[in-house]
Amino acid sequence: MLSAELEQVSGFSTQHSGLLGGGQTMDLKQVAKDTAKVLTSYFTYQALRTVLAQLSENDPPQALWLHSFSSKNSIQDGETFLLELLTEKQELAFRIMTVRQHLAEEVADFLPEMVRTSIQQSNMEHRRQHLERMTQFTISEPPARPEQQPDSET
Amino acid sequence: MLSAELEQVSGFSTQHSGLLGGGQTMDLKQVAKDTAKVLTSYFTYQALRTVLAQLSENDPPQALWLHSFSSKNSIQDGETFLLELLTEKQELAFRIMTVRQHLAEEVADFLPEMVRTSIQQSNMEHRRQHLERMTQFTISEPPARPEQQPDSET
Repeated sequence: MLSAELEQVSGFSTQHSGLLGGGQTMDLKQVAKDTAKVLTSYFTYQALRTVLAQLSENDPPQALWLHSFSSKNSIQDGETFLLELLTEKQELAFRIMTVRQHLAEEVADFLPEMVRTSIQQSNMEHRRQHLERMTQFTISEPPARPEQQPDSET
Repeated sequence: MLSAELEQVSGFSTQHSGLLGGGQTMDLKQVAKDTAKVLTSYFTYQALRTVLAQLSENDPPQALWLHSFSSKNSIQDGETFLLELLTEKQELAFRIMTVRQHLAEEVADFLPEMVRTSIQQSNMEHRRQHLERMTQFTISEPPARPEQQPDSET
């Protein structure tokens, strides 16, 4: 379950009770910090994928090795993953570190707008579809005669 | 495993072979799109947590209901989660939608800088620690006499 995984990645479980401790206010600073942590981990994961893809073209044995390493060492905690990799094949760890920094530099600035738009659009779409369902329900609820719509009620 | 979960969230598994299809270039546009999708899902999860915490203060029975709903319906796919919730308790779905939009609006602009800094710092820290380990290894590797450091080799 993603939520459980994300809890582990960002240490949410321990902060649950404190999040809204002062009442209705949201701890936006904490949300931002946690989200940045999740993003960092996600870029590490993307960097691993990129390096794996590069190696599988240029150095298949190395790709196989890294693939096997990443199946034994979870990328869930990106920092621990890198720490382990540094002790086994430092050049691969350095490469993943370089790639994740590059990815973050190239991609990060576009994210705020993309995320806001994505959420706005999908909220709008949910509201539209819900309204549509409500309307259909009202229309398909005539004074009586349930036999007319045998499959709309089940 | 987070990578597997993220693969499901963002549909990576299907794109693996195509990511670097043209050689060494990274498909930054695709990475940005996938990251935005993960962020959207993450904000939905954070919004659910916020609403749960608010309800547990103001409306415990409703909080219990939502908690039980979210243990039966995975938040892994935020949109499906909302779709299901809309059919059962539309007011809660609308509330989560509003909160996630609010979170994204308040937090998103800070993320690029936070993530870049986080990655730079942790890369630097990994390099520093690794250098330290290498140096210690070199120092603790004198011309001969392995008996002098019985526990540095095991």
